[in-house]
Amino acid sequence: MTLTLEKVKKWYEQSDSAHDFEHARRVYLMAEKMAEAEGADLEIVRAAALLHDVRGGEPGGEGRDKHHLLSASFAGEALAAEGWPAERIAEVQHCIRSHRFRSSESPSTIEAKVIFDADKIDVIGATGAARTIAFSVHAGEPIFAEPSQQFLQRGEKEPGEPHSAYHEFVFKLRRIKDRLLTKSGRALAAERHKRLVEFFEQLAAEMRGDA
Amino acid sequence: MTLTLEKVKKWYEQSDSAHDFEHARRVYLMAEKMAEAEGADLEIVRAAALLHDVRGGEPGGEGRDKHHLLSASFAGEALAAEGWPAERIAEVQHCIRSHRFRSSESPSTIEAKVIFDADKIDVIGATGAARTIAFSVHAGEPIFAEPSQQFLQRGEKEPGEPHSAYHEFVFKLRRIKDRLLTKSGRALAAERHKRLVEFFEQLAAEMRGDA
Repeated sequence: MTLTLEKVKKWYEQSDSAHDFEHARRVYLMAEKMAEAEGADLEIVRAAALLHDVRGGEPGGEGRDKHHLLSASFAGEALAAEGWPAERIAEVQHCIRSHRFRSSESPSTIEAKVIFDADKIDVIGATGAARTIAFSVHAGEPIFAEPSQQFLQRGEKEPGEPHSAYHEFVFKLRRIKDRLLTKSGRALAAERHKRLVEFFEQLAAEMRGDA
Repeated sequence: MTLTLEKVKKWYEQSDSAHDFEHARRVYLMAEKMAEAEGADLEIVRAAALLHDVRGGEPGGEGRDKHHLLSASFAGEALAAEGWPAERIAEVQHCIRSHRFRSSESPSTIEAKVIFDADKIDVIGATGAARTIAFSVHAGEPIFAEPSQQFLQRGEKEPGEPHSAYHEFVFKLRRIKDRLLTKSGRALAAERHKRLVEFFEQLAAEMRGDA
């Protein structure tokens, strides 16, 4: 009844590099730490961490917007094949469906809150900076471009303004720590947030010729 | 007789993202600072900085190994068209030909040493980390993989060991600061080296589940 890292790895082979098996592995390690602190069910948390991005990550595919639903559906089949009871499968599926910021389903169990936070923590810190740069490169976008005043104030780019990795930091990544749902998640995010901000502020200073 | 950033920008349109016009622009800003401290000829330094990577940077092209020669040759034509005298063109060309670690021609003038150092400083700091990640992504390589003991000791990978951005840091980037040629270059590199090491050490800790 136990999913192993090795077993899950092959299911991720179609994923893009920002949501690959390595991301799932890191979320698994982070969620394990948090589950203990939060008194969450470790088996539910582990399964949800491993399977939360397992489908919908094909590069250029159309599945990204519903990857949480596709992954929850895949998890249902995979866990049923492992002999899991229906009510525990449903708990894992709730974690997976509610892990996105924009999901219509919000995390309502401590296990789902742990998965939500662990997934977000992987977007900050040095890892978050590296993944954001990788995503920009894949998208053909620059690593750094000077954000317009309009973007800094309202998050709306001027005509012709590129969306750089630095834009992503300014508008999204540096706000992540304020949107976490658990005490242990906020504690783990504090150091990563600091590292993230240091990195992008240094990057901007170097790009501007100020450092 | 003066090359402007705008004039040079269009010559870089075929370059890859690690040696693009933005890199030339940063090297220009860095070399300007250094030229003053080193008492170097500012006009030579500026022209060499702007033109040092102007050719041979086509993605997937074969020109990378001789980009310093191709760029020096292009610079010769461009500066002649601007009316530069032959002896000053030759000084710029020496800077460009000798800016690579593996060039058969070593920097012998203070202007060439400034260009060499300014180019290397752009490989460290947050900018160097970001460029190295971008290069790995372009090459289809991972951002992080655990280096083998053999790689850590001798720089030789085991069979099947991927070459990650972290490998590039371990074997190359963290040694850059010890290979610079000018006092001002070493001073400017000190803070960037510190930021580079902090970033990749944090990245490795996060990837290992230790941070």
